[in-house]
Amino acid sequence: MADKIYRVNITDLTTSIEDVPADWAGLGGRGLTSTIIAAEVEPECHPLGGKNKLVIAPGMLSGTVAANSGRISIGGKSPLTGTIKEANAGGTAAQMLAKLGCKAIVIEGMPKGEGWYNLHITDDSITINEESELIGKGNFAIVDTVTSRMDEKHGIISIGPAGEMKMLSANISIKDPDSHVRSCGRGGLGAVMGSKHIKFISIAPTDAKVEIADQEAFTAANRAFTKALVDNPISQALGQYGSNVLVNIINESGGLPTRNFTSGQFDGHEKISGETMYDTIVERKGKPKHNCHKGCVIQCSQIYNDLNGNYKTSGFEYESIWAMGADCCVDDLDHIAEADHLMDDIGIDSIETSVAMGVAMEGGVLEFGDGAEVCRILKEEVATGSALGRIIGCGAGSVGRAFGVTRVPVVKNQAIPAYDPRSIKGIGITYATSTQGADHTMGYTIATEILGVGGTVDPLSKEGQVELSRNLQIATAAIDSTGMCLFIAFAALDDEHCLPALIDMLNARFGISLTADDVTSLGMSILKTEHAFNEAAGFTNVDDRLPEFFSEEPLAPHNVVWDFTGKEIDTFWDF
Amino acid sequence: MADKIYRVNITDLTTSIEDVPADWAGLGGRGLTSTIIAAEVEPECHPLGGKNKLVIAPGMLSGTVAANSGRISIGGKSPLTGTIKEANAGGTAAQMLAKLGCKAIVIEGMPKGEGWYNLHITDDSITINEESELIGKGNFAIVDTVTSRMDEKHGIISIGPAGEMKMLSANISIKDPDSHVRSCGRGGLGAVMGSKHIKFISIAPTDAKVEIADQEAFTAANRAFTKALVDNPISQALGQYGSNVLVNIINESGGLPTRNFTSGQFDGHEKISGETMYDTIVERKGKPKHNCHKGCVIQCSQIYNDLNGNYKTSGFEYESIWAMGADCCVDDLDHIAEADHLMDDIGIDSIETSVAMGVAMEGGVLEFGDGAEVCRILKEEVATGSALGRIIGCGAGSVGRAFGVTRVPVVKNQAIPAYDPRSIKGIGITYATSTQGADHTMGYTIATEILGVGGTVDPLSKEGQVELSRNLQIATAAIDSTGMCLFIAFAALDDEHCLPALIDMLNARFGISLTADDVTSLGMSILKTEHAFNEAAGFTNVDDRLPEFFSEEPLAPHNVVWDFTGKEIDTFWDF
Repeated sequence: MADKIYRVNITDLTTSIEDVPADWAGLGGRGLTSTIIAAEVEPECHPLGGKNKLVIAPGMLSGTVAANSGRISIGGKSPLTGTIKEANAGGTAAQMLAKLGCKAIVIEGMPKGEGWYNLHITDDSITINEESELIGKGNFAIVDTVTSRMDEKHGIISIGPAGEMKMLSANISIKDPDSHVRSCGRGGLGAVMGSKHIKFISIAPTDAKVEIADQEAFTAANRAFTKALVDNPISQALGQYGSNVLVNIINESGGLPTRNFTSGQFDGHEKISGETMYDTIVERKGKPKHNCHKGCVIQCSQIYNDLNGNYKTSGFEYESIWAMGADCCVDDLDHIAEADHLMDDIGIDSIETSVAMGVAMEGGVLEFGDGAEVCRILKEEVATGSALGRIIGCGAGSVGRAFGVTRVPVVKNQAIPAYDPRSIKGIGITYATSTQGADHTMGYTIATEILGVGGTVDPLSKEGQVELSRNLQIATAAIDSTGMCLFIAFAALDDEHCLPALIDMLNARFGISLTADDVTSLGMSILKTEHAFNEAAGFTNVDDRLPEFFSEEPLAPHNVVWDFTGKEIDTFWDF
Repeated sequence: MADKIYRVNITDLTTSIEDVPADWAGLGGRGLTSTIIAAEVEPECHPLGGKNKLVIAPGMLSGTVAANSGRISIGGKSPLTGTIKEANAGGTAAQMLAKLGCKAIVIEGMPKGEGWYNLHITDDSITINEESELIGKGNFAIVDTVTSRMDEKHGIISIGPAGEMKMLSANISIKDPDSHVRSCGRGGLGAVMGSKHIKFISIAPTDAKVEIADQEAFTAANRAFTKALVDNPISQALGQYGSNVLVNIINESGGLPTRNFTSGQFDGHEKISGETMYDTIVERKGKPKHNCHKGCVIQCSQIYNDLNGNYKTSGFEYESIWAMGADCCVDDLDHIAEADHLMDDIGIDSIETSVAMGVAMEGGVLEFGDGAEVCRILKEEVATGSALGRIIGCGAGSVGRAFGVTRVPVVKNQAIPAYDPRSIKGIGITYATSTQGADHTMGYTIATEILGVGGTVDPLSKEGQVELSRNLQIATAAIDSTGMCLFIAFAALDDEHCLPALIDMLNARFGISLTADDVTSLGMSILKTEHAFNEAAGFTNVDDRLPEFFSEEPLAPHNVVWDFTGKEIDTFWDF
């Protein structure tokens, strides 16, 4: 059965299921979402108006048994950045959609009235249903209610109150195998879903399997691929401590942005570190290892329980812990976990929102370190849509503008995450040049600069950084198209068997014969498609810059500033 | 005595008085502020950071007895739009600075501490003084206190609480001859002044006179110029009804944006019209005619008293009355006058703030028509810097983003004023292409489209509109450099004696021999300087567009949409 495009027009309340155009057949994940957005969305359009579209696509290998291939990509024009946007996450949706033969869901138009809807997807239908019960509810209530309406095997893609209120950093949640949620976090695509009045999408379970052109070759390649992942020491560290293993490492490097980016080290780092988190989880009988989707062999997620041993949060990532922790000077993991849980329920990006809190602290809205007040603001202001909640829910840039703060760590209005570009310079190139605003996952130079994976580059030197970021951004665009988790990159960079095995799987899946060069070309082509969209939307090289304060305020302990010139940054696009 | 540049460095708390560079000698007003900003400010800089500068310059004829020549220009990079910005106003400052020999004040740097300052200017000094008493106070208290500290003859340039809080639509107030205030209203330059911690600038009175190269020629030219102004029927209407004479005219044309730009006519137009205002003023023993600066022969300002016959507001302009009136559906002139008074005191742009209120009404923050709630919000939220106050104080775009409203009438994030571009198309070209965001004063095509001045252009047709806007924007850039009030344009366009007399005055003042072509060249050169600054700041032709809804929602009663293509708009810059 050939894959299909599922299309929903929310203006007319019509749906259709279409053949996949030949040009799109070889695409998946980010490659497909960005291609569809570039083809069908006017770059100048209002991101929350009827001309924007929301595109949801599983990766090329999603639905197969390939290890770590369960990422789902969601794309659109971002209301936060104004750029093209793709955000991906784990959970069950990608694998389920792929098995149903759904290559992508395209949601277009603008509802005529005030009513809200849900969508339901099966192997041969997509239906639009009125929804009222769940309006105003958080993501956990959605999962509970939809599960009791249907059963726990259904997949769910949903937005919380933040998305309904069209807050610019609203995210989209994906139910995971344990009925918790994962987030397509950045860029405010939840507001786009909210603008179309879609509260959730339910996905019918199926026994169907994804077709594999050469099953034997696929199985062999997956075995080699899995071995590369499992053997990799960084994979192993991620499995034990989660991504939060990075707190101590990045603090040691002097690149842990602290107190709204005024220092590179945090006194309280031990209290929020991956090691402390691990001990806490074990002590409270949580799970240090947990997979966000079936087939993940790294298992960087975890189940973090509260003091009483009850579930509090999962997918408790380094970047979220850094943001609410070091950046806001909150050194209590329980406050951070509570905030993480609240943000998951409200449906709002934890990086953007926490960095926004840090800017609000600098603006005098609350005190640095006041984790209890952070949680109160999330619960009583952001979740309810008070004026303060809306300022924070619209991100760090919004808080800076409202409270007259000029130390606002954003690029293209999106918050800079957990690695200070003054002392880890390569990641600054990624923040500056990314087609989607500041985002470490777009070209994770930390792998090489700090973890020594795939070579060595001195994080304090400009030497080689543009090339490093470029190579990683190209590779990432391709990986984001396969449905693979980005954490395969450590093995891919360091184990000669990993990338060939991945390519073998793609070839075996589709009966094609891609080479490594083809994969690079795909990555380049995706970046160029995205860049062209942004240029047509009015972006120029002037937007590829870090905020002024990075060049003016030396960062302790290395006392270094961001010293790339605009001209140097612009060489990124020389390919 | 040659004119001087007064420079203040607020980082080091140093001042200097410098000779005027030869290149700047022939400039004044907007021509000078934009030239200095373009020469000395990095276009990419943060508008509220240490790299931006605030430049204050009287016009070329300010300080002379030339009729209507008392406008002061203030320039900088706008925190609201991100573009170069010049805002001008009447009041006493321009004439006083010119008589002191001050060609421009340039304020640069960023204060190191929390302290606030005032500046005091004499004929040979500019001093920086600590200020604490007036911090947090409104503009009227500043005028009262500074007057009692010095005397009523001193000039005052000040910011209210909005500027202190760096609200993006904070304005800068200029004391007028009756100790009320006029506003350099648009683009948030009050926030730039606030970012530099300058609460006010006091200007010492002087008996000195501006030097006139050829007094006899000057007197003759001024006589002819004044006659042209006084004889002009539109000047006369402005004198009787103020600019608010336009409410009924624009309502009749179907271009009076109503209920957040959802209709072109307002049922309550009679209640807020210039005619009603005139009757109310007379009945309450106010003044229908009032001049905002010495030598004005049009006298479009007025003294509007409250029900008890006490002073409420002056300079009660059409655009402010439209914005708080038709756009917010408030049909009570007393509510509008109270709001106008509050905005003057808080120091915030009345157009931006009122349009922001209209967007907030659409977003459900308050009801359309609720003038009392508008006044409460201004007093209790904006003036105090509550979260809601800060959202509104950062303008219409800010309100739209916070409350998820997509019908947001802004260009380059600045609110569109009182003329709907769907049914008065030429003004739409001005909004789109202005170097400073949506601003009717940049190229007031209403003069020709609606008032039949300087020719005839059908407001409902695209024909001739780009050329009309271009010609008026060029002329306006030149007029804004002379210190002349823009209302001389009606006579200049219709009376063959007016413009030659103006040029004769410039020549007699400086002993030069400008032609009409030279004046046109000056206007072109200013626009190109400003446009180049914006391009270097990252603006492109994509920014020269009206919001999507103008193209999609037909406007009653003509049921017309904005139908200029991007390509057509871009021909504006073909000169």
